[in-house]
Formats: sequence, C-alpha cells, structure tokens
Amino acid sequence: MSDVMLDQSTAETVSRRSRRGPRQKGALRQKPWARFQNRLPPVEVLSQDEVESIRLASLKLLSEVGMEMHDAWAREVMQQAGCDVDHGTMRVRFDPSFVEEQLAKAPSTFTIRARNPERNLTLGGNHINIGSVIGPPYCSDLDRGRRNGNTQDVRNFVRLLQSLNTIHYLYGTPFEAMELAPEIRHLQGYINGIELTDKVWGSWMLGRSRAEDAINMACMVFDTDRDGLAAQPALMANINTNSPLVLDAAMTHGARAFAETGQAVVVTPFTLAGAMAPATLAGALVGQNAEAIAAITLLQTVRPGLPCVYGSFTSNVDMRTGAPAFGTPEYAQAVFASGQLARLQGLPWRSSNACASNVEDVQAAYESEMSIWSTVMSHCNLMIHGGGWLEGGLTASFEKLILDAEMLQVMTAALQPIDVSPATLGLEAFKEVGPGGHFFGAADTLQRYENAFYEPMVTDWSNFENWRDRGSLTATQRANGIWKKMLDEYEAPAINPDLLADLKAYAAQREAEIASGIGTD
Amino acid sequence: MSDVMLDQSTAETVSRRSRRGPRQKGALRQKPWARFQNRLPPVEVLSQDEVESIRLASLKLLSEVGMEMHDAWAREVMQQAGCDVDHGTMRVRFDPSFVEEQLAKAPSTFTIRARNPERNLTLGGNHINIGSVIGPPYCSDLDRGRRNGNTQDVRNFVRLLQSLNTIHYLYGTPFEAMELAPEIRHLQGYINGIELTDKVWGSWMLGRSRAEDAINMACMVFDTDRDGLAAQPALMANINTNSPLVLDAAMTHGARAFAETGQAVVVTPFTLAGAMAPATLAGALVGQNAEAIAAITLLQTVRPGLPCVYGSFTSNVDMRTGAPAFGTPEYAQAVFASGQLARLQGLPWRSSNACASNVEDVQAAYESEMSIWSTVMSHCNLMIHGGGWLEGGLTASFEKLILDAEMLQVMTAALQPIDVSPATLGLEAFKEVGPGGHFFGAADTLQRYENAFYEPMVTDWSNFENWRDRGSLTATQRANGIWKKMLDEYEAPAINPDLLADLKAYAAQREAEIASGIGTD
Repeated sequence: MSDVMLDQSTAETVSRRSRRGPRQKGALRQKPWARFQNRLPPVEVLSQDEVESIRLASLKLLSEVGMEMHDAWAREVMQQAGCDVDHGTMRVRFDPSFVEEQLAKAPSTFTIRARNPERNLTLGGNHINIGSVIGPPYCSDLDRGRRNGNTQDVRNFVRLLQSLNTIHYLYGTPFEAMELAPEIRHLQGYINGIELTDKVWGSWMLGRSRAEDAINMACMVFDTDRDGLAAQPALMANINTNSPLVLDAAMTHGARAFAETGQAVVVTPFTLAGAMAPATLAGALVGQNAEAIAAITLLQTVRPGLPCVYGSFTSNVDMRTGAPAFGTPEYAQAVFASGQLARLQGLPWRSSNACASNVEDVQAAYESEMSIWSTVMSHCNLMIHGGGWLEGGLTASFEKLILDAEMLQVMTAALQPIDVSPATLGLEAFKEVGPGGHFFGAADTLQRYENAFYEPMVTDWSNFENWRDRGSLTATQRANGIWKKMLDEYEAPAINPDLLADLKAYAAQREAEIASGIGTD
Repeated sequence: MSDVMLDQSTAETVSRRSRRGPRQKGALRQKPWARFQNRLPPVEVLSQDEVESIRLASLKLLSEVGMEMHDAWAREVMQQAGCDVDHGTMRVRFDPSFVEEQLAKAPSTFTIRARNPERNLTLGGNHINIGSVIGPPYCSDLDRGRRNGNTQDVRNFVRLLQSLNTIHYLYGTPFEAMELAPEIRHLQGYINGIELTDKVWGSWMLGRSRAEDAINMACMVFDTDRDGLAAQPALMANINTNSPLVLDAAMTHGARAFAETGQAVVVTPFTLAGAMAPATLAGALVGQNAEAIAAITLLQTVRPGLPCVYGSFTSNVDMRTGAPAFGTPEYAQAVFASGQLARLQGLPWRSSNACASNVEDVQAAYESEMSIWSTVMSHCNLMIHGGGWLEGGLTASFEKLILDAEMLQVMTAALQPIDVSPATLGLEAFKEVGPGGHFFGAADTLQRYENAFYEPMVTDWSNFENWRDRGSLTATQRANGIWKKMLDEYEAPAINPDLLADLKAYAAQREAEIASGIGTD
C-alpha cells in the first residue's frame, strides 16, 4: 500500500484548496493535450470479400429476421418509410437497399464542440478519441478497496479525467453515484462534466427526459438554442441495442431526442459471441452489424445527416461459465473486423479498452493492451472505456485510470513519425565519439538531452536496488500515489459563475419536477 | 503469495517422479505446439526513402568511420577482401558496394534442425520463432524472491521451456548457473538443452572453445560430422557487437567457429540511443545497421551463404539517469524500423520481448506487450527473450515466463484468420434464437461448444465474488501455481541413453581439459 493515505473528504478539500492557491510545482509529468491521428494504415484481418460477406449477411438478417423495435414511434417511422412492420410482434424487417440508402446519408466525419474550443473532437478518418470508463456501479482504489460509487468519488474521478491529457471525452458520471436516486443522477453528472472539465461530455440516453436535460444544459453552456446546437453539435452519447436484434423503448427515446436536436448518437450492440450472438466471430459480427445499421437507419430516417457512430463491442463468453471475456484474441479480431465494416459503410466507429480482470494486475494490463493496440491500429475513432475500466466494466478503478493513461501515452507516442533527417542520422556524433566511445557527453546528445525520449508517468526505470530501497512499489502502487498527486494539483477550468449558478438552478428545478413526477419519461 | 510452497529440491524430485509415473490428468491447458506465421502485412513506420536513407547513412558510416575489429584474423580477412584496414587502430573501413555484395550472399530464409524434426525452425519470411530469456545472473519466483542463478533452477526453467508450446527456441542456460565456474557453465547448459528438451538450443559464443563444444555435441546428437552439420545446420546463436562500432575478439572467435562449420549466427548490436548510439532513433538505427551488416559482411566473406540473422536491440536510455529503458515508444518504433531495414537487405531478423520493470507487475506487462505486438507485427523472425525476461534482462522470472507465454498465446491466436464461411455467419442460429433470445442453448452453439474460443492458461474470467472467495489471487500469483504444476507434469523427451552417456562423458572430459588449461580460448 502507498505510504500516502488520503481519504475522500481530504482529497476533496485539497482539491478545492489547490484551485484557490498558486499551482504547486508538479513533479507529475505527462504528454501535453493533443488530438491523436494514426497515420499508419489500419490493420485489416478480413479480405474485401470476407468483410462484404459479413455486411451482406447482416442485411439478409435484417430482411429475413428483422429487428424488434419496442417503441411504437420507431415502428411508425419505419413503416412510413416502407419497411415491413408487424406491430404485434414489434418486428421490423428492412429492405437492404433502403438500409444502404439511409446509411449513405450519415456523415463519415463530423466535429463535436467542447466548452473549450481547443478540446473540440473530430470523429472519422484516422482520428482516435479516447474516452473514460462509463457505467460501473462500483469504484475502487488501493486504500479503500471496492465500494459503491458515490458523488465524492465520482467528482474526484472527473477531476482526474480533466487533468489527464490522454482523455478526450468523458461522462460526468464515469461510474454511478449510488447514493443518489437513479432518476436524478444524470443532473449531477452533467454539472460534473461542465463544472469540473472543459472537455466534451456524454449524456444519459435511458429515456427522453435525461437526454432533454443534457440538451437544455448544453444550450445554456453554449448560450444557444436547439437550432444552434444542431448546427454545431456538442453532445455525443451511446445507446446499446439489446442483443440479439432488439432496440428497446428507453434507449430509443433518448436517441430520438438527440436525433431531433442533431446531436451525435453512438449505437453499440453488445454482441457477446456464444450468449447474445452466435458462438462464432463471424456470426457475432453479423449480429453487431445488423443491429448497429438498423438503429442508424432509423436515426437517418428521422434526421438525414445526423452524426452517428457505429459501435462495436463484440467479444466472447467463457463457454464453460458464460462469463464475458475481454481483451481476448477474439476481442482483438472483432475490433480489426469492426474497423473494416465501419469503413466499408462510411461510418465513424467506436470500440473500447476492455478487460475482464478483477484487479489492477498483469491480466488487466495484457487484456487492456490487446484492446488498445487492436483498437488504435484499426483506426477506431472513439475508444470508450479508455481509462479506468476494470472487472468487465463493473468497477472504475482510480489506479487503473492512471495505468491506462500511461499505456495510452506510450501507444500514442509509439505511433508518432520517426524523425529521419540528416541531423538525426548522427554521422557527426559518430565521428565525434568514435568506435568504443560513449554518447552521454557528446555535443549532439547534450543538445537533445531534454526532449530526446518519452518520459513516463508510472514507469520506473531505476535499478533493482534503488527500486527496493524506495519500498519495492509496483506500478499499481505508484499509480495510487500519482492520482492523489494529480488530484492535489487539479485546477478547475474557468467557468462563468452565473452560468454555473444557472445550471445548478436548472438541476434543482428538475430535481423538484422529477420528485413531483414531471419529466421523468 | 501462493498457498502452495514448493522448494527447489521438492520441485526437482516431483519432476523426476512424474517422468517415471503415469502422466497426471493435467488441468493445465495450453495451445498445441505450432509454428507461427503472421499472414498480415508488416506494420511499416518509415517511408521507403527513409529506410533507404538510414541504410545509406550506415554504409557511409562504415566507409568513413569504420568498425574496430579487435581480432587480428578478422582484420586479415577484411584486408584480403580489399577493405581499408589499419592494424594499429584496429580500424576496418568498408566500401559500400563490397558490403552490399557480401550481404547479397546471405540467405533470406533458412532452416535449423532440432533433435525432434517436428521442432525444426524456419527463419525468414513471416515466420516468427519465439525464444526464451538468455543471460541473466539472477532468477526469481514469488516464493523465494530474487537470487543467484543455479543449476537446479536452470534445469527447472529449461523443463518449463520444453513444456511451453509457445517457446520454439531456447538456451540450455536461460540464466547463469552462478555456482559453476564460468569456463564450464556452457557444458552443463548444452546437456540441459539436449537432455531436457527436443527443441533447437543455442550456444555460447564467447570464445572459440565454447562454440566448438556446441558443434562437437551437435555432431554427436545428429550422429554426423562437421560437413553433415554444415549441410543441415542445427545451431543458431547470438553475438553482440560492442556498440558503438566495435567487434570484440571473443565474440569473433565464437562466430568464426560457427562460420567455419556453417552454423547460423545472429549478430545483435546493443545500440541504446543516448549511450552507445546517438540520442536520436534514426542515429541509433544507423549504428545498429552499420554494426550488424559489418559483422555479417565478415561472416559472408568467410563462408558465403552462411545463415545469418540481423539482430536489433535498439532502445533508449533514461536521459536523467542513464538507465536502459525497454518496451518504450522508442523501442517499438525501432522494432518496426528494424523490420524494414532487415527486409530491405534481404535478411531474417531478430528482436526481443524486453521490459525494464523490476517485478512481475503491470509495468512488466505493458512493456512486454509493447515489445510483443511491435515485434510480431513487424514480422520479426526470432523473438529472443520471449519468455521470462525481467529487470532489463538481469533476472529470469518463473512467473514472468508463464505470463509471457499467456501473452504470446493470446497474440498468436489473435493473428489467426477469422473463419468467414456460410456456416459461421450464423443466419440459421439467428433464425433459431430470434430477437431477444439467447444463444447458450442454440444447436449451433452446442456444436461449437468445445473449441469456440481461446482458452487461457493464466487469465481468470470468474466474477469478483468467486475470485475473491478463491483467495483474490493476482495473475502473477496464479502464474506461480501454474509453473509448479507444469513442472510437476513435465515429461522429458525420449533420448537414446547411450547418446546421453556419451554427451556427459564428453562434458566431463572437457571439464578436465579446461581445468588443465586445454581448449579454453
């Protein structure tokens, strides 16, 4: 365990104090904020024939089996657009050419604006945006272990998401604040995202009212109306299909609100091969593609040109126990194939940095690395769960967040071009040093000393004796010290106090309304 | 710590007992022995112009600065071949076209035979062969910590190398048996490689006599003479240049013995940018390339067509402390670039699964994963240090060996083709299950149940409660139990007892000679 103990309330106090006082000289080093484009060609594991046959099979599936759409409005929209709809069974069957027509309307690239314009995000092409973990009921750290998520931990985690330059996108609730009633958690989450960060923040999509609250608060942030928000989308959020082949009512309601207001919708089937999809990777990809393009077809029918993201979450289950498995060979293969499917259909796409391990150990690291390298090398435009995901998504870990940030920094740096210019080829340095010499003191080395190589956050390169004498800390234990220091150094981005007061007043009013049963759909 | 304590002597006893008794029903699962070809195109980070400019700069370096060759015979060979040699400074300068001519004689692909022909290795193309850690003075495990290497631990480690199907190539001394005199350690190492494994084993190259002993013992194993051994090479071993730009005498003597007998030589410069090479990646690659091709030029001059492997070990140092850094962004970039340089020059090539961490933790895992994915995706033909390397190569870890094997199995499996055939697309399964259903009991799932997905050795997919109730073991702690079980299940490959007796007699005779100062060069 770390020698620095810091309880929640202390961290919250320290964090507030540091915002008022002068910034401490941080020993924390990290790469500066930067957008990330992978200029290398994507790794592609399927032949063009193979990726096309998966696409065609998914169209056949939508035509012959179809999708259950639990929301009557969605079925009406599809019926009016000419689809074969059975309201009794809620089944919608799609003509392949109709689906292709609708998908063609979706933009292949779009921009989402942030409160700080330098944090705007581009989705599409070889742009890779990294988001934090979303959704766990638990959080954990080395000091206090695994526990229910709560507002104070959520807000500290969000402060870290603001501080970590590897994180481009976040939810104001990276995990659930379980002490709050489920109906009002989103309001505090939006406040967190707006107050504590200047990055793009995501919205709850479970039901219309949660999405509407996000839209209303985004309008306040950008001092605009819904048309203005539609002209420059500021929200991007995820809906899941209920695999296999179901789009439920609550997710549809959230997506409908976004579609009507021109905000970006990520559609992610949860196609675990062997459970919610066939026990083959190809079959699971057929399911994934069918469900994603069915929902995007609905959204493009409602609002042609709506920014949509093709979501991929295909992995497998342990066939012995049914447990979901992440960071597996099949997971990486599915990531590569999903990139090909998204590109074939002209859609930006989303994947994840997923792992199954219950603890921040070597398994968590190698599962995450398999997720990260496959995701990055297949030009995934939105890597959700990029930081902090543990235990198959049931826990958000403070240490894992820091470890992920290091892994992502290393990956990003490894994909930068190598400078191959006459000066870097080193012939003069070799002549200066000569055979058997040493480059430590060479003029060329001294000149490059400061910024020659990647400087890590977590990695310890010291020798065994020095490492042992400093307490034999593992990387996970060092990460514990780092997030505390980062929290201590956190600086809240500037925000107009009137705006913040208005947002809080809006949230308070909505809480009261919800308590009275108003706007809870 | 593991609840299973097992001291060295117990492990050795258990291991011997299990060889006599019937094989226990092993719960250990691993992928079967297989050669590994990466059918995906290699990741290439340099443009053709850039890789060519590095190659040209290295030729210029060899022409203008040259290489110090500390062995007089080597300088004579180079002088007779027309190189510019100064015996006083020991400097050899090479004409670029001469180097190109010699390199063109080296085969781009060759085969190394093993005692078991099923374990023969192909070097070149997209064949990826994985070798174990070589060279550390220390070994470690969770039970007894870090300690001097010793024969009993060495032999147990070699048994694991035989048992692990991910390991294609090994040294009979993955780490040093420090209690033996340095002059005779190699003899026990060769016995270990031959007796305990049926895989290709590597030889000491420090001085002629150690290489000659390997050659003599290989002739005994294959019941052949030196011409026979040359016709079907059975040995492959590594020499290092003393970067920058020095080829020392002892390594030359070992390589000379191999060249004269047609056995494969791996030439690996140790070009740490900022220390033994310029503080730029391009400069370090220029140094690496110059040193590797200078030594290969010597070897091709001595024996045209000798199987040679282009070695890459370029990484960087921590500029603050001088500590070597592995698994860094620069390391991965150098791996990708080295693959391009090797292919440009038509040579099989070698890299490593390297990490700097002092302990089997998340840092070790992410450093190794950066090494593994870059190495595999750049078509490295020989991944030395593939299993067990820790602490920048100072320690061979029993747990890391198992963790590496899992990481390598996962990587290998992830690069297998996805089966995209009508049966795997799953349309019948979708029709059977329908929207909202579950595939666990589907006919298609039941049929594929057994072999649908990757089955791990170390990874634990159980839920948090089950994992906690079984002792909250980390992956590293589970690896501890696995290597003990694997040692328990170890079966020595069959060997003619007369041959083994002859080999032991040879080793004993050589020990006596060495004690008398005979054949110690």
